[in-house]
This record gives sequence, C-alpha cells and structure tokens, in this order.
Amino acid sequence: DISTKQYGKVYASDPLDASRPLDTFARRHLGPSPDNVNQMLKKMGYNDLDSFIGSVIPPNVLKMRPLKFKSSPKGGFTEHEMIENLTQLGEKNKYKVKNLIGKGYYGTLLPPVIQRNLLESPEWYTSYTPYQPEISQGRLESLLNFQTVVSDLTGLPIANASLLDEGTAAAEAMLLAFHLSKKKKTKFIIDDNTHSQTKSVLRTRANPFNIELIEVDCTKTEKVLPLLEQKDVAGCFVQYPGTDGSLISGEILQKLADSVHSHKSLFIVASDLMALTLLNPPAKYGADIVLGSTQRFGVPMGYGGPHAAFFSVTDPLKRKIPGRIVGVSKDRLGNTALRLALQTREQHIKRDKATSNICTAQALLANVASNYCVYHGPEGIRNIAKRIYGFTTALANIIKSDLCPHSLVNETWFDTLTISLSSETASAEVLQRALNDFNMNLFKVDEHTISLSFDETTREADLQALLALLTGKENEIEIPNKLPEFPKLHLRPMDFLTTPVFNKHHSETAMLRYLHNLQSRDLSLANSMIPLGSCTMKLNSTVEMMPITWPQFANIHPFQPKDQVLGYQEMIKSLEEDLLSITGFDGISLQPNSGASGEYTGLRVIRTYLEDKGESQRDVCLIPVSAHGTNPASAAMCDLRVVPVNCLSNGSLDLDDLKLKAEKYKDSLAAVMITYPSTYGLFGNLVKDAFDVVHSFGGQVYLDGANMNAQVGLTSPGDLGADVCHLNLHKTFAIPHGGGGPAGAPICVRKHLVPYLPSHDVVEMITDPNQGNGKTKCIAPVSSAPYGNALVLPISYAYIKMMGTEALPFASVIAILNANYMMTRLRDHYKILFVNEDKSYKHCGHEFIIDLREYKEKGIEAIDIAKRLQDYGFHAPTLAFPVPGTLMVEPTESENLEELDRFIDSMISIKREIDLLVQGEPEGQILKMSPHSLQDLITSKDWETRGYTREQAAYPLPFLKDSKFWPVVARVDDKYGDTHLICTCPTVEEMSQE
Amino acid sequence: DISTKQYGKVYASDPLDASRPLDTFARRHLGPSPDNVNQMLKKMGYNDLDSFIGSVIPPNVLKMRPLKFKSSPKGGFTEHEMIENLTQLGEKNKYKVKNLIGKGYYGTLLPPVIQRNLLESPEWYTSYTPYQPEISQGRLESLLNFQTVVSDLTGLPIANASLLDEGTAAAEAMLLAFHLSKKKKTKFIIDDNTHSQTKSVLRTRANPFNIELIEVDCTKTEKVLPLLEQKDVAGCFVQYPGTDGSLISGEILQKLADSVHSHKSLFIVASDLMALTLLNPPAKYGADIVLGSTQRFGVPMGYGGPHAAFFSVTDPLKRKIPGRIVGVSKDRLGNTALRLALQTREQHIKRDKATSNICTAQALLANVASNYCVYHGPEGIRNIAKRIYGFTTALANIIKSDLCPHSLVNETWFDTLTISLSSETASAEVLQRALNDFNMNLFKVDEHTISLSFDETTREADLQALLALLTGKENEIEIPNKLPEFPKLHLRPMDFLTTPVFNKHHSETAMLRYLHNLQSRDLSLANSMIPLGSCTMKLNSTVEMMPITWPQFANIHPFQPKDQVLGYQEMIKSLEEDLLSITGFDGISLQPNSGASGEYTGLRVIRTYLEDKGESQRDVCLIPVSAHGTNPASAAMCDLRVVPVNCLSNGSLDLDDLKLKAEKYKDSLAAVMITYPSTYGLFGNLVKDAFDVVHSFGGQVYLDGANMNAQVGLTSPGDLGADVCHLNLHKTFAIPHGGGGPAGAPICVRKHLVPYLPSHDVVEMITDPNQGNGKTKCIAPVSSAPYGNALVLPISYAYIKMMGTEALPFASVIAILNANYMMTRLRDHYKILFVNEDKSYKHCGHEFIIDLREYKEKGIEAIDIAKRLQDYGFHAPTLAFPVPGTLMVEPTESENLEELDRFIDSMISIKREIDLLVQGEPEGQILKMSPHSLQDLITSKDWETRGYTREQAAYPLPFLKDSKFWPVVARVDDKYGDTHLICTCPTVEEMSQE
Ligand SMILES: Cc1ncc(COP(=O)(O)O)c(C=O)c1O
Ligand SMILES: Cc1ncc(COP(=O)(O)O)c(C=O)c1O
Ligand SMILES: O=C([O-])O
Repeated sequence: DISTKQYGKVYASDPLDASRPLDTFARRHLGPSPDNVNQMLKKMGYNDLDSFIGSVIPPNVLKMRPLKFKSSPKGGFTEHEMIENLTQLGEKNKYKVKNLIGKGYYGTLLPPVIQRNLLESPEWYTSYTPYQPEISQGRLESLLNFQTVVSDLTGLPIANASLLDEGTAAAEAMLLAFHLSKKKKTKFIIDDNTHSQTKSVLRTRANPFNIELIEVDCTKTEKVLPLLEQKDVAGCFVQYPGTDGSLISGEILQKLADSVHSHKSLFIVASDLMALTLLNPPAKYGADIVLGSTQRFGVPMGYGGPHAAFFSVTDPLKRKIPGRIVGVSKDRLGNTALRLALQTREQHIKRDKATSNICTAQALLANVASNYCVYHGPEGIRNIAKRIYGFTTALANIIKSDLCPHSLVNETWFDTLTISLSSETASAEVLQRALNDFNMNLFKVDEHTISLSFDETTREADLQALLALLTGKENEIEIPNKLPEFPKLHLRPMDFLTTPVFNKHHSETAMLRYLHNLQSRDLSLANSMIPLGSCTMKLNSTVEMMPITWPQFANIHPFQPKDQVLGYQEMIKSLEEDLLSITGFDGISLQPNSGASGEYTGLRVIRTYLEDKGESQRDVCLIPVSAHGTNPASAAMCDLRVVPVNCLSNGSLDLDDLKLKAEKYKDSLAAVMITYPSTYGLFGNLVKDAFDVVHSFGGQVYLDGANMNAQVGLTSPGDLGADVCHLNLHKTFAIPHGGGGPAGAPICVRKHLVPYLPSHDVVEMITDPNQGNGKTKCIAPVSSAPYGNALVLPISYAYIKMMGTEALPFASVIAILNANYMMTRLRDHYKILFVNEDKSYKHCGHEFIIDLREYKEKGIEAIDIAKRLQDYGFHAPTLAFPVPGTLMVEPTESENLEELDRFIDSMISIKREIDLLVQGEPEGQILKMSPHSLQDLITSKDWETRGYTREQAAYPLPFLKDSKFWPVVARVDDKYGDTHLICTCPTVEEMSQE
Repeated sequence: DISTKQYGKVYASDPLDASRPLDTFARRHLGPSPDNVNQMLKKMGYNDLDSFIGSVIPPNVLKMRPLKFKSSPKGGFTEHEMIENLTQLGEKNKYKVKNLIGKGYYGTLLPPVIQRNLLESPEWYTSYTPYQPEISQGRLESLLNFQTVVSDLTGLPIANASLLDEGTAAAEAMLLAFHLSKKKKTKFIIDDNTHSQTKSVLRTRANPFNIELIEVDCTKTEKVLPLLEQKDVAGCFVQYPGTDGSLISGEILQKLADSVHSHKSLFIVASDLMALTLLNPPAKYGADIVLGSTQRFGVPMGYGGPHAAFFSVTDPLKRKIPGRIVGVSKDRLGNTALRLALQTREQHIKRDKATSNICTAQALLANVASNYCVYHGPEGIRNIAKRIYGFTTALANIIKSDLCPHSLVNETWFDTLTISLSSETASAEVLQRALNDFNMNLFKVDEHTISLSFDETTREADLQALLALLTGKENEIEIPNKLPEFPKLHLRPMDFLTTPVFNKHHSETAMLRYLHNLQSRDLSLANSMIPLGSCTMKLNSTVEMMPITWPQFANIHPFQPKDQVLGYQEMIKSLEEDLLSITGFDGISLQPNSGASGEYTGLRVIRTYLEDKGESQRDVCLIPVSAHGTNPASAAMCDLRVVPVNCLSNGSLDLDDLKLKAEKYKDSLAAVMITYPSTYGLFGNLVKDAFDVVHSFGGQVYLDGANMNAQVGLTSPGDLGADVCHLNLHKTFAIPHGGGGPAGAPICVRKHLVPYLPSHDVVEMITDPNQGNGKTKCIAPVSSAPYGNALVLPISYAYIKMMGTEALPFASVIAILNANYMMTRLRDHYKILFVNEDKSYKHCGHEFIIDLREYKEKGIEAIDIAKRLQDYGFHAPTLAFPVPGTLMVEPTESENLEELDRFIDSMISIKREIDLLVQGEPEGQILKMSPHSLQDLITSKDWETRGYTREQAAYPLPFLKDSKFWPVVARVDDKYGDTHLICTCPTVEEMSQE
C-alpha cells in the first residue's frame, strides 16, 4: 500500500494506540510531511501517491513485492528500540578480549578527540567525494596529509588518497605491472611470507588474465633470480615485515629490486607504516610500488574494515597509479587550492581501456589515519613503534632463553613473533589457555605453531601474561626496567612528517581546532542538500552511525573465532535475509566493499558459473553507452570484451541494437550490465524484454544497483528477471559517503549462482553456501576481510530495521516524488532531458537531467552553473554524467519541501543570470566568476568593473543572509594542478617558488 | 617538583619504560611543549619553571602540598584507561531498570540527533555565557526558543533562560515575593501537595530571613483564605500537578489567585511543561509566577541533574525576574540581533542589594530542552503528553476497578498515580517485587502507599507489568485497543509553539541543519582561545565528556536506592577525597550546583555553625570592593550585612582597612569572603595575615575558589588558613561552560564545619557526616538533588584522575606561565594594571588586567577593543570586571604558544588602530565600527567613506585568511533591546512592525 493515506499512517502514529510506538523513524528519515506530499502531488496533477507512482513505473515493473524483514516489527524499530537491539547484539561479541592475532589487523587507540570530532561528526561523514574542490578544501587537505604520510614513510614521491584494503591494493599493483608489460608478461612472483588473505585476493584477480602466481621464498634470491631470467615476470612482490614477523634484509631487498629492474619489471613491497617509522623506507632499496593498510593508525579493527589501504609509486608510474590523488593547485585569484588531480584518468573516461575500476575508496578512514599522524607527530608515532618493538623484543628474548620450552621461528621482527611450540604442545591448547586464563586471542599458524603481534595497546601486563602462558612461570620472570631499544644501526633517519601540520597540533585543544577548521571548509549534508544524481545522498541518521564507535563492534578482529562474534553473525544473517527480501534473490555476499568491487565480483561469479557449465568461451559483455564508467572497467578487470549497446534519443535502451549485438555475439555472450532505472534516471518499460533477449542468447543479466533507491518495495532485480545485482549500501542503504568512502556493496544472486559467491581462506564464512560439503565452487576472496567493510554493516541493518516493511517502500516513493516535483517546477526554466509529456517519458524516476548544452555556443558550460550554485550554498548536481553538458539532480527522500524549493529557486535565479550572460549583460559574468570566495568578496580590487555587486555575488537570494555555506577558495584551476603535480604537503620552498 | 625537567617528564614519557603508559593525558591537556616553556621563560628572564613560580607566589603561600588521589596511578590514567575505569564504574549503576519514581524526574528520550550534534558537540558545550552577542547568535536563538516554550506553555509573557533546578526556582519565587513586600510580609504559604525536595529547598532559603512557611492543603480554600487575611503572607505556592499526581481544579486555582491578589501578594505555581501541553496554562487562572523543571524535555535524569529549571512571570514583574533573559534587539545595521537583555540587572551591579545571586545557570540543558521542542513541534509534544495521560488513565481505570485490591489516592492525574495498598500489603514488598519481577522502580510514599509516574518511555509492556504487579493477574487483563483520551473539555487550545521555528525542523535532516546552523554562529573553544579572566576556559576533553551520554550514568534517577548506584557512589567518594586532598580540607558537599550556590551554601554553613555556638548575632560579612558580584549577593541571600573592605591602589587588599572593619564589627563579625589569587589575578602575600585578623575577631574565612586554577598543587585554601571554600568545577576542574551552565560547585570545609554540610530529605546521602547518628546539624538541602549536577561530576573526576598527582600542579604552573608570558609581551603596548617591576607585583597570577581607561577621554572604550577582537577571530577577555574600563585576560594552561602569540599579535595590531583613532585618522574608526559582520562587509554601501578597506576590517592580520570565525551580526544595540523588551520568538507581525 503506497497510498497517501498509508503515508500519513507511516509518518505519524496514533498516540493512543498502545501497541505501536509513537515516534517512528520513518517520520525522521522522510523529508516531506503528508501535507507537503499533497501539495506536491497537486502541483503535478495527481490526487494520490499510488496513482502518481502508477504513472511513473510501468505496470510490468511495478510489482509491489511484499517485504519480509527478520525479527523486527512491521512498523520498524523506533530509534531507541534500535539502540537497544544494537546494544544487545554488540554484547554478543567478545570485545573485551585482547587480540594479538595480527596478520594485518592490529589493536590501535583512536584518539578520542578524533573519534568525536571526525569519525562521529556528520560534517565529516556525510560529505561526498571532493569533486567540487572549492567547497571541499578541508578533507582535501586532510587527504593530502594522508598522501604525505604515505609518501614520507614509504619513500616514494607519489601516493594516492586510499584504496579499499591491502589485498586489493596488492592486486592493483600486480595488474599495474601486468598492464605495464602490455599484458605480455604473464607471471608474477609473490614471496611466500605474505599474509594469506593478500595471496587469496591476488589469486582472484590474477585468474581472469591467466597470470601465473609463483610463490617462492624471496629471501632465497637464488630461487628468484632464475625465475626472472625467463623475462615473462611482470613483477615481484614481497611483504616487509613478512607475515611471520621477519624482516627481509636491506641487501636482499636491494638485490631483488636490482634484478627485477634489470628485466624492466616492477618491484612491489607490501609494508606496514608503523614499522616504517623505524625501518628504512622500501624506496631506499628500489621498490617501485609500496602498499599496505593504515588501519593501525587509529582505525578500529571493526571485524575487518573499513580501513584505508595506501599505495605509493615512483615518479615514472605517477600516471598509472590507481585511485584518486589529491593535488595542489591554485584558484582564480592565485591562492593555493587543493583538488583531485588527474581527474581525466577517472574511470568514466577510460571505460573498457581501464586498468582499474576503483572509484569509491576509504576517504573517511584515510582521514582518521592522517589525523592520527597530525595528532601524534613524527616523534609520537615513532615512539609508539619503538615501544611495540621493545615489548616484542623483550618477549623474543625470553622465548629464545632457557626459560621457555618453545622456540622462535622468525629471527628478525618488528611486532610479530612466530613461535614453534615444543613438540608435545598443540597450538589449539595454547590458544585455549591464552583465552581462558588471560583473555587473549593468538593466531594459529599450524598444529604446533602459533604467532602473536604486539601493538599500540600492549601493556606490561600483557607481556607478563604471555610470559606466564609460554613459560608456565607466573610472575617469576622479571621484565626489564627499560625495554630493548631498536638498533640504532638500522634506525632510519627522522626524515618523515617534517611539514608544519604534523608538528603543531599535539594538544587536544589544538587538534580540536584543526579538525574544526578543516570541517568548516567542507559542505556536507549538515549544511544543505547534496543533489548528486546517481549518488543518493540521503540521511545518514545518528542511530545508524552510533555502533561504529562502540567497542562492541569496533574492537573485533576479523579472524576471531566464530563463537566470539555471535552478535556480528546474527546481525549479518539478518541483514542478508532482509536484502534478499528486498532484491528478490536467493544468495548474497557482503564481501565486496565498493560498487565497483561488487560489479567485479558479480561478473566473476557469472564467468565462473559459465565456465563451470563448460561455456568458458563466453567473454562478451554488453553495456549500454550510457553506463557508468565502472561497468566497462569492471568488465575489463574480468578480461571480458565490452560491446556497447546504443540508447535511443528518447533515453530508452535501443532494444533493436541489443538484439543485434546479442545475436551477433550469441556464442560468446557472457552478460549484459544494465542500470535500472537507467543511468538517465528513467523507468524504461523494455527492461524485461531486454533481459529476455540476453537470456535467450545464453547470457546472464547483471543489474547495477546504483539506482536501487527507486526500486525498494516497488519492484526488484529479482522480479525484473536479473541474475545478479550489486547494492550500493552507501547509496540506498544509508551508509554515509564519508567524503569518498567507505562503501558497502553486497552482490545478490539467483539460485544458480549461489555456489559461486566468494569465500574466505582464513576464516570460515558463516554463510558459505558450500560450507562443510568439501570442495567448493566459490570464487576466491575479492576482499581481504571475510565480510568486507563489516563495521559499517550495522548502518544498513539499522536503516532497514527502523524503516520497517511498511515505511521502506515510501523511501523510494518519496525519492521519486521529490525528483518529479523538482523537475516539474524547473522544466519551465530549463530543458529537461528525455522527460516530456509528448515523448516516451512523462516522468523521471528518482533523478532527472538538466540539459545545458544549448548554452555552450554562448560560452556557458554546465560547470559554470555548478560553480555558481556554490554561491547559493549548494553542492552541484552530478556534472557531465551520464551526459556531457548536463547536470543530473537526485534529491532523495530525506529532503523536505522547503529545501527542495530553496534549490529550485536558486536554479531559477541562476537561469536569470544565464539569460543576462546570453544577452551580453556584464552582470552575467557573475556565472563565470563564480564561486565567490570570501577573500574574493573582501580583498579583490576589481569590483568596480565587474558589472555586478558583491551583494549579488554573495546573497543572490534572501535566504542566504540567514544561513549560507561559504566557499573558501575561488574557482580552482584544474589544468595548472595537473601540469604541476604536487601530491604531498608542499614544503615552504615549494610554496614560495610558485 | 615543578621544575622544567619534571615538566618534560610529565609531558612525554619514555617509550621504553614498560611500567608507564606512553601517551599521557597531561601532554594533551597542557598547551606549551617543553621547548615552548623554555622559550617563554627566556622571554621573561627565567631559567626554570620552579624559580619562575617561586617569584610569582609568595613563599609563605607556596606550600607545594603533596597531592594524594585515590586509586589512580601517580602519572594519571591515560585516556583509554580512563574510559575503562569509567566503564567499570558505570556498569555498577543499575541503569537498565525502568524508573517510574517520578517526583520531578522522569524518563525521556533524548533525540539522537540532538545528543550527537548538541550535547556531545564541543561547539555547543565549550562556549561561554553569551555576553558577546555578535558571536553568540546561535545559542541566543536557542535560548530565546526556550523562553518561548516556557512563555507559551505557562501563559506568562516573560521567561528567563533557565535557573538551576525546580527547588531553587521555587525559592527564587518565594524571595521575589518576599522582597516585593519590601521584606515586610514574612509568611509564605505552600501547598502540602508539593515535592518534598522543593519544600526542603524552600525551607533552607526561607531560614535566613525568618520567613515562616505555612504548609496547607490548598485545595481547601477555606483553610487558605483566612491565612491570607492576616496580610503578612508574601505569596502562595501550589504545585500543579501535585506531587501525588492530582490536579487542583481551575476554579480553585482561580479562587486562590484572586484572594492572593486581593492582598497584593503573589500566586506562584510550580508546574510541568509536559502536562501543560494539555492543561490550561496557570496564567489563565491568575498565576504571577510559574516555574518548574524542563528535564523531561529530552534531558537525561543523570542522578539528579543538570537540568534546566524554568521561570516565567507577568509583565509587571519583568524587571524582578532572577537569572538571564535573552531579548530581541538590533545590530548597528538595523538587522535583528539577540542579546542578553537587562544586563544592568546582573549581580555585579546590584551587589548586596541583590535579591538573587544566580549567575551561571543551565544553558546547555535549556538548549537541549528547547531543541527537543523544535524537533517534536507542538503536535508532537502534545501527542507524547496524550499518550502519557492515556497510559496513566488506563492503569487508573484498572486500579479503580474490581480487578485490583488496591485503591487510588488521587482522583485526578496527568502522569502520576498514588496508590493506597490494601491493608495487608506493605510498600516495601511491592517495590521489591516490582524490581525483582519486572525490573521497575516505584516510589514509596509511606508504609502502605506507593506512587508511580509514567513518561515518554512508557510502553505497553510496562502497563502490562504493572497490571500484573498490582492485580496479581498476569496477561489476563486486556489493555484497551485505544488508550483513554484526555477529556476534550479540559484540553487547552493549541495556542503554543506557533512560531515557524517549532514547525519545520521535524525530520532528522532538517534538525541536523538547524543545529549546525545555530552552532556555526557561535564562537567556542573549537574556534579559538576564550581568554575570559575569572572564567578559566580550559580544555574540556572528549574523554571527560564521554560518560555524560552513557546510559550507565545518564539513566539514573536521583531517588534510586543506594544499592543501585554503586558506581556513582564510588566515583563521588573518590572525587570528594581527591578534592579534599587538593583543598587541604576535611569535609565536602557536592550539592551546590553553581559558584553562587556554593557561596550561599558556605555562608549558610558558617552561620549555622555560629548559631550552634551561640553566636547568632554575628551577621556581618566583610567583602573586598574588588569582589565578584555574587559574593555580596550571596551574603545578602543569607541576610548578612555586607561591609566592604578597600583595596590599595597597588591591587593589594588594604589590610589596615580590614583590621579597622573587623575590629569595628568584632561582635557581629561572621565572615570575610576573599578570592585568592585576588579577583585582580594577584598572589598577594598578606592573605594569611588577613585571615588571622578575621579569625582573631571571631569571624570565619570564606575563600571564593574562582581562581583555584592558580593554586592546585602549589598551595590550598586549607594551607592558607581558610575555613570554607567553594570550587568552580566548571572552571578549574574542566566542566565545560555549556554556553552559560551547567556548573558544579562543591564546598570544602575545615573539620569544625563538617557537621553542618547540607543533607537531603528524600534519600540518604552516602557521605552524610551524621549519617546514622540520629539528629543532624546539617543545613537543609540547597539543591533539589542530593548531589546537585551529578551527571557532570564524572568530568572533574576524569580530569583529576587523568592528570594525576604529578601533572596536576603543572596545570596551575602553566596557567601562570601563559598569563605572565602574554603580559610580558603586551606590556610594551598596553598599560597593565597593578603589575609592574617597581610596584608590589612583579608578576600576575593566572590572569592579568589591561587598563584602557586612559583612552576614555579620546572616546575609546574597552568595549571597542572587545568588539574589534571579534574581527580577529577572538572572544574578548572579561570586560569591566573587576575594574571598569579594563579587560582581564586568562589564557589557561590549555593554550599553546602559537595561540597565545596570535592573540598577542592581534592585541598589538589593535593598539595600532587605537593610536590611529587617537590621532584622529579616519582609519581608526575601524574600532568604533567593529565587529564587521559578513553582511556589513558585503552589503553596506558606505565603504567608500569609511577611511579603511574591507580587507583591513576583515583580515587585519594574515593568519585570518587561513581560518577565521565571522560575527554574523554587527555591533548589537543594547539600549534598543532593553527599551523594547521582547523575550520570546517574535511573530512575523512583531518583526515587521519594527
Ligand atoms: C551507476 C553506477 N554504477 C557504479 C558506481 C560505482 O560505485 P562505487 O563508487 O561504490 O565503486 C556508481 C557510482 O556513482 C554508479 O553511479
Ligand atoms: C570570583 C567569582 N566568584 C563567583 C563566581 C560565580 O560563579 P557561578 O557563575 O558559577 O555562579 C564567579 C564567576 O565568574 C567569579 O568569577
Ligand atoms: O559571571 C560573570 O560575572 O562573568
């Protein structure tokens, strides 16, 4: 029931109905009141929501699938009930245990000032990827700091602003090397002393290209060098420190690098930034790429993620680096301004020539890590590392002594010791004792080998406990007064984090102000609507966000035994079931941690299924020309051939062209990738026909769920007939964008594909479909952690549970209503693409496209309108996607009528300015000069000659005098930045040279 | 040890010392690094901190008292250890119980969006009382909303911006009535159906004036009217709804009001705003004053406080209302601007003629309550009330039926039922069963009577539980489908919260933006130093603030039995012991909840002690002329005669004058009130002599601890020889100012005064010195709750425990260093009061006074400098206290050298502007026109004629271009606001009439 009446009920309960709570979350999540809804419907000529939706969504699509959610009331939990439920779940996780498991995930102390003022701050977590640099200087600065940390510690000049996790970062490095060889060198060496999950992800990603992974002990150069002689090795990968804790010597690293380089291949090092505060940077020994995780810089383990991976390269590789890079540029006034550099490398440009599909990354966590460094400073972090090393060495010394019956496997270490137990001692028994007697988790390497890793949280008492555990002598062994010192001989110089930002904000007061200052430069959902089409910038509610920083969810290691994570399991199972109910599918994997990763996973599942059926020749993927750049890029990652399918001028998919192509490639057709409603925001009625066509030629149907927010409860990928879809939890299901990540992108599949969903090698997946039945068909892992960005899953879980089955469909209904209302008011002023009473589409879906191409010949670009919107306090809609020269507007259901009207009024006011410019009036220059930063308004000397006043520039509409977000720089010069690439904090000299 | 070397140790631990944590809180709390300290000492000609302090503090004062803190390491807990410790304490409180105790404290649901973005936001909680309106428009608006809520619901036109609690609000009303009669009417009628704690506080406050409290059943007008006939009744006080839950009828209220008025006395009503969303406003029946608590509007019970009390009056009483009032005025440009109205009524003006000493109130909690109303809107709150009434009535109906063996005491109700148990049932037994079987706390009225109150958190299951409890029939009684409706006949019209602000921010997105918008208008410690002399605006660290919103501390009713609050008790005991160690005293009371309340309590203890000794004639209180206004005001509240003592022109107390006065009043000398270091910020060396003088004439010594931040670990009130002191936990011990409260102000006393510390009537104090030994000498309660603002005590507790005994003295040392460094740099540019190489004071203490009086004849006032500082992004120092025409600067220990220098550079730059103005240069007008709001900079038309540029106005120093806080209005017109008093949200008409 999606009638207006039902909306009224969902929105406001009867206070005298004792059986239902009074305050519902739906009322808080959904913007327009029932009165507003009637007003908006009237404006569009409808009487009721259901008749309105009935004329937006084709009848063969509008299924009104009945949702069923596990163990929550139909009306949804109230916010306070949700907190209770989450608290109960959290208590079922064993979170007070000391995790010494290591293997890429370490205890760390999130500084409380960063917790409260960054990780728990909507100003930080609700912002979008900083594509509009003038209103994003805060997080751009913070990400530049991140790159500086990475560059300084690895010794390589170019670093990106985060990748998804260490495993995928390693895979990106491998593929970079492979593509550098023009796909000719098909072997890749990995040191066997690498984290197991990293190897797994490498395996997954090597598979489509038939790259042969050669695992060797790289310390034995005599084994490696002959392999290189074959000249078919794209790269050599070592982990430093290794997974057993040991450190390859500098000489061997240098030797490996030299040999690799002599064959024009790449030398790649996975490393640990904490260790690198003591150890020489890998670049010193010739590394071309250094990558790893920054988790232990303040980011909670969170059952495996989200954490920011890092990736740095040599200068010659700078234009090959995957992911986003923040660069230093200038604004129109010549002031320093930051921006995303080299944006032309982004995926929507490269499409199927892409060598990486990464889009959303881990910006929020990168910002935590970079601010951890700002807070501690170089000395501070090094001291943490020294102490970790000191504790490790103190324990190692005892193990090596007569006091201990066991022996040490690794002879060198930073924080990790691998211990070979005396022959009569079983690992399982030691692990059990550690848990029972000392409340500690260690890692089981094999039946008689264990390992443990120290970290920032290690205390004297932990060392004491381990001594007792390993020697059986309680309190008898004295801990040295002073922990052993890291050998001076091997200590790197203090050549990192030397720029001022890392050396002045060490008090809480200073740090608070620094964070506040950064935050004040960024437009977020706390300021105004961010109507980015295809991005679904809806409310990220407080209750949804709360569990993120609860130790019950945050302090969980991904490799903790199953019986210690019952709360996570229950939550995950319930979320999985709810998402299956929403999508109409049979199986799900929560492992992919970005939309692009979901696409990759889905396509890999399809290909593996086809191979299993004996149809491995099927390697063509049909993709409409309107698709998002990640679609062809993901296909390319799977070594699929991308065949474009046309769209008609009315915005519909060209079904004839689809038939033609499907037929043409009938023997090699693997899949079609379709976004629905389309990337144009349209509910086409041929979608099922299209799917039938593909199926009839033996292909599988992949539905890109980016626009799922228009479908929930109204239709579903399952109902439409798709085989796979990914969901962007960070769009439809309320995970905040975090300024460019984290994401969450499960894939849901039909029954026949369930056996192929990704597995994990280190821990058993609670939901592994083949669990227990021996040989599995699962594709290998696509992420390092079994459940990807597990820590943000409670957000989507809470969103679904609080909306409940009754209200959730209204999220889609109101999203569609809001978009159509805006379009209706704006169509008198702007050309709307595809939607027109006379054409096929009378309505848009949950987003619509404003066509500005007609003004191009007058010298007006869509970007001018985007920038001018900043002067009205708004973030621009999506620029130039899916159609160049346009803006795509998606308001979401969370915006209320007042805000919609404010945006519409702003756009109408801008239309007046466009007209003035077209007419050649000097006032029209206001568009070209926008945005007007405060400094421009206050210090520029040319105001007399501008043809418009400061007031027109700054307060074009009266509401702005009440409240306005101010851009802090003027329009940023993109070209300058790309030609003068600086992607670390500039030194004072660099700044003054400019 | 306060050497520089020790500071180095305290600041940064040795990473290889396993026995100590690496990261200390001290390093985060204290601004200057050891390097900075050396630099600063050098600037002042010192080699070491200890020699520096030795020359600041007289040797007979500098005692270096050894601190001993309970159960925490010398080095202090680290932040994460502190979180663990607080977590453990919290778990010892029974916080998951359902509290139906009522009696002024009710369950409520703090909306998560308000929790995160207001109560947990440093931008809100670190700001000061909005004395500088141009940089405080956000919380001024929020407090105006609060006043509007109060005014609308009570029906009275004038409301203040909060008082401390319901009990003291009642006392303020009583004293207002008493003073209105020119102290001639010495009787005061209270309805016996009033909360017990309110009666107690009334008793306490009536005592000094010998006001006779007559407790009667006011529903029996035949008893009340004859009393009034006596013509000596100052006022009549009723509670509506009464403590038993019943509602006096409108007719009786009207009758009482009429009779009271016919004798020119005041009719005072204590009420509950939640009930008033249904009931007719007391003003309708003739109330002159309506007061109560706003706790149940979203503010956690917090074991008794802090909560905002409200207080509203009729128009004729508007200049008598105690506390702060926000009023609507205009800025220089004619734009609406808010400000504290009628500031000339503030205490420092009235001094001993004051009728109230209230200063710090409960701004932060008032803001929570007002935003709760913004979020829910009038309908929303009324719905909550309807539901509460519905549940209550459903239960009442069953109790009255045959199904229940017990009977109802009250015949009318809103949320509370008082139940007379069947004769064989004991209250204790029912309470025990409620707890054991249903996890509920009820209230024991007497052996066979209990009561219970419903609230916003009540659910159907609670009703079911109570039915089972009271009837013994589990699940047998059906709850009506629809809860009983509040009788339409008695329902007040929807005449409240009609202004737009209460009717548009009901979605979480809208609320988030509203809060963010308000916050962005306010300067807080998240922006820059707030160097308010006498206010100690130090760091309020995140960890200290965390427990505030933990249910473990927040969900505790002040009347929960002792064995349910073990965590609070342990924390309180430990805090008490630590504070006694710091002050050198023997006993303490945490009950007073503001500095002024502490003063009052201390003086009452002194007077009671003297009376007990048979010296009740002693009624003179000596107070230096430099004292804070609250000192004489508090003395006046105790009916003490204030005799001023002179100060010498060098800033010292005039010891001769003190001797003279002490001698003159030797028979009536009760006490002296001294602030040390003095309100001039000076460490005088005659303090002990002064105390000796007073003691020698039989007086007691009260030390105002406002400047305690210069004493901790260096000396103490006990060492100095005082008898009582109050501590401002909201200054020295890190409780944030919250934009004007909450506070915490324990009094500490020497042994002979311990027996007189305040008690509580409803619950046994865990620390009651006379506990168990029958008759007590305790003065009656000074606050409604046994431990005052208990919920904020963990802040001070954590501050002390994290600093530890070693670092805490450095808080004082660095505070003194910072002040002296600033003074040293500024004395080349400004006249510094009292401190001069040649005069008695070579150094200031932790604050110093800039004398601007010389410029007065040139037309330059201190306020011009204060306002101009806003253009430099700073909050002004304390203006005109303790000396008119001056600014008093207190940087605190939390500011680092960079920030101190930024402020100093700003002051030096302003000095240049002063010189220009003195020289008659037009550029000098920049001072007079300050602050320059954004609108002034952008829209004013007179820039050509100003004699200075926009850039000079906005960016007088380069650092401002990087980061600047902007005033949103120009200088506010004080006179206009006071002559056109509007203290509720103006209606659109009111706005347009102006
Ligand atoms: C249609 C579509 N597909 C895929 C993606 C990629 O998702 P992600 O950024 O999470 O990798 C997007 C992102 O905006 C999108 O709009
Ligand atoms: C010296 C002095 N005494 C007393 C007080 C009053 O304290 P409170 O505002 O907490 O009532 C103040 C406040 O600034 C003060 O400075
Ligand atoms: O409280 C003050 O008087 O500043």
